[in-house]
Amino acid sequence: MKVNGQAYRSIWLAADGVGVEIIDQTQLPFRFVVARLDTLEEAATAISRMLVRGAPLIGATAAYGVCLGLRSGASSAALEEMAVRLIACRPTAVNLRWAVERMLRVLLPLPEEQRLRAAYQEAGRICEEDVAANEAIGRHGAALIASLAEKKKLGEPVNILTHCNAGWLATVDWGTALAPIFKAVEQGIAVHVWVDETRPRNQGASLTAWELVAAGVPHHLIVDNAGGHLMQHGLVDCCIVGTDRTTASGDVCNKIGTYLKALAAFDNQVPFYVALPGSTVDWSVDNGVAEIPIEERGQEEVLRLQGQDDEGTLRAIAIAPAATPAVNPAFDVTPARLVSGLITERGVCPASRQGLLGLYPEQGK
Amino acid sequence: MKVNGQAYRSIWLAADGVGVEIIDQTQLPFRFVVARLDTLEEAATAISRMLVRGAPLIGATAAYGVCLGLRSGASSAALEEMAVRLIACRPTAVNLRWAVERMLRVLLPLPEEQRLRAAYQEAGRICEEDVAANEAIGRHGAALIASLAEKKKLGEPVNILTHCNAGWLATVDWGTALAPIFKAVEQGIAVHVWVDETRPRNQGASLTAWELVAAGVPHHLIVDNAGGHLMQHGLVDCCIVGTDRTTASGDVCNKIGTYLKALAAFDNQVPFYVALPGSTVDWSVDNGVAEIPIEERGQEEVLRLQGQDDEGTLRAIAIAPAATPAVNPAFDVTPARLVSGLITERGVCPASRQGLLGLYPEQGK
Repeated sequence: MKVNGQAYRSIWLAADGVGVEIIDQTQLPFRFVVARLDTLEEAATAISRMLVRGAPLIGATAAYGVCLGLRSGASSAALEEMAVRLIACRPTAVNLRWAVERMLRVLLPLPEEQRLRAAYQEAGRICEEDVAANEAIGRHGAALIASLAEKKKLGEPVNILTHCNAGWLATVDWGTALAPIFKAVEQGIAVHVWVDETRPRNQGASLTAWELVAAGVPHHLIVDNAGGHLMQHGLVDCCIVGTDRTTASGDVCNKIGTYLKALAAFDNQVPFYVALPGSTVDWSVDNGVAEIPIEERGQEEVLRLQGQDDEGTLRAIAIAPAATPAVNPAFDVTPARLVSGLITERGVCPASRQGLLGLYPEQGK
Repeated sequence: MKVNGQAYRSIWLAADGVGVEIIDQTQLPFRFVVARLDTLEEAATAISRMLVRGAPLIGATAAYGVCLGLRSGASSAALEEMAVRLIACRPTAVNLRWAVERMLRVLLPLPEEQRLRAAYQEAGRICEEDVAANEAIGRHGAALIASLAEKKKLGEPVNILTHCNAGWLATVDWGTALAPIFKAVEQGIAVHVWVDETRPRNQGASLTAWELVAAGVPHHLIVDNAGGHLMQHGLVDCCIVGTDRTTASGDVCNKIGTYLKALAAFDNQVPFYVALPGSTVDWSVDNGVAEIPIEERGQEEVLRLQGQDDEGTLRAIAIAPAATPAVNPAFDVTPARLVSGLITERGVCPASRQGLLGLYPEQGK
């Protein structure tokens, strides 16, 4: 996607073909800073300090981390060590393990001297596949938005509510939940986005809003409390969110608060869509609420908040009494009964086992 | 309620019997500062700058504001002028107008020389009535909590979720939604409170949490997004919230986000109670979603956040891109169908016209 007229991805090979460049997302939305990674250690730090975040982007960064690590030694023992180091950065990110294991599966059978070149090729392939899947999600989702646009009066935008950041910054490009929005705008459809700030980490306020500013998409930031009221008053035409894990029966695990928005959408007959690549489906899990373990993150994320002060300095402030503890579940599960449809790279399907198997028949074998 | 072992109300007559003292709530939860009001203008500023907030407390402050104003002149023209000045401070607060009009109704028929003494008496009466109503709400609500406690295992607390601040800081004492909790604790019932931070103004994090710390009530702060997840996992036994306006049919207008919690409570069979004095019922309104106008507040409240930095300075930080606008509806309406019961000073009733008329039969005439 473009930033100030220049096309960017969230990760790319540097001009010298060796180093890897990323956008330091901890500085957004206040500063657009490109960081260069030259070593495995720098890649690992970028993941653990969350310069990069979002499951697909973490996977891509780890894949390039293997490339960078191979520059200092390509033995199988070294490769195994790199894998351990990278996977430990964010132990719960599924794509991180997936990407690292894919790299090792490709590289370990090769002679040592061929590994470096092959690693860069495979990392590039991981990125290209991600971009292609997301662009396809965008096309299928944009068709849904187009059909909503047909019901609007001339000049009235389709109002789309989204939660958290499932934009291009969370993937290599396009994003999942935001891809349909970017594609619809490309097609000349008038769109307006309600951006949930998404406490505690505020990915909506800091990343989704920034992406929409950069792309020139009309939007308003709202507190996470506001969506239900907007839906009651007919101000939301559909919701589109991403997901970290979807069960075989269509239950959707996503950023905490998604379930509340899905309840409000259902109560007000607002379509609630979830955008995901097929790789996000966990075919081994059926009942999301009962079976998906929910990551409990540090209470500091609730008790303190980061932003930019009037002098332009990034700083954290406390918002609660020192004696008050907090609890911080990072995700919740939206039951399939509240989901109007899953937007995948293969098309849109009902949030059900039958719906998913219709698009991914190979999983039914 | 007690603060550091000393009993406080949110407003009281100073030791000299003339000035009025309040707690400067803009400094909470970080600093407990008592401010003295000596003039009408100081009372008006305390209301408009939100040193005091919460409908009943605003009303009490305005009543005392009339007393302070009378010290510089007790003519009827002066009284009318004071009323206009005070009501303009927060034009949407129903209790503000109610309290000022009540003062004028009592004072205008009196000879000028009797007005000052009568004013202090009437302001005191307004405060005492508020305290008595809230304490009664507390008793009726505590009985509900006691019945939930009977179903818990020995030593397990009743988990209560609340939104915003409807505690003693929002009233003269006891509060509405928190009164049942304080009364239950007095009765030795084990209680644990989930405190919604309540963006955008964070009254949960700054005021409710502070009240619970001061009263020694076990609690955890959560982001507004978390309640649904907690309810899905059986971690909430009931919700109790306050209300700014309740319709004759039991629809409840309260701080933005209340509706989302009510939806989650309904979806998980968690009782959802609303605590209110009868004066909060607007008998002229039936359909809350359609008829209650929702205050739209400034976008700065969404785009910036106040707290305490690491040096102990209160400061505001920006959380979104400079080019991102925000929309900030302050309240939403929870339809009566989602409300398990209304806790009033006269007892608990169903959220319906019939239920309310059972407790307030004089309104059916």
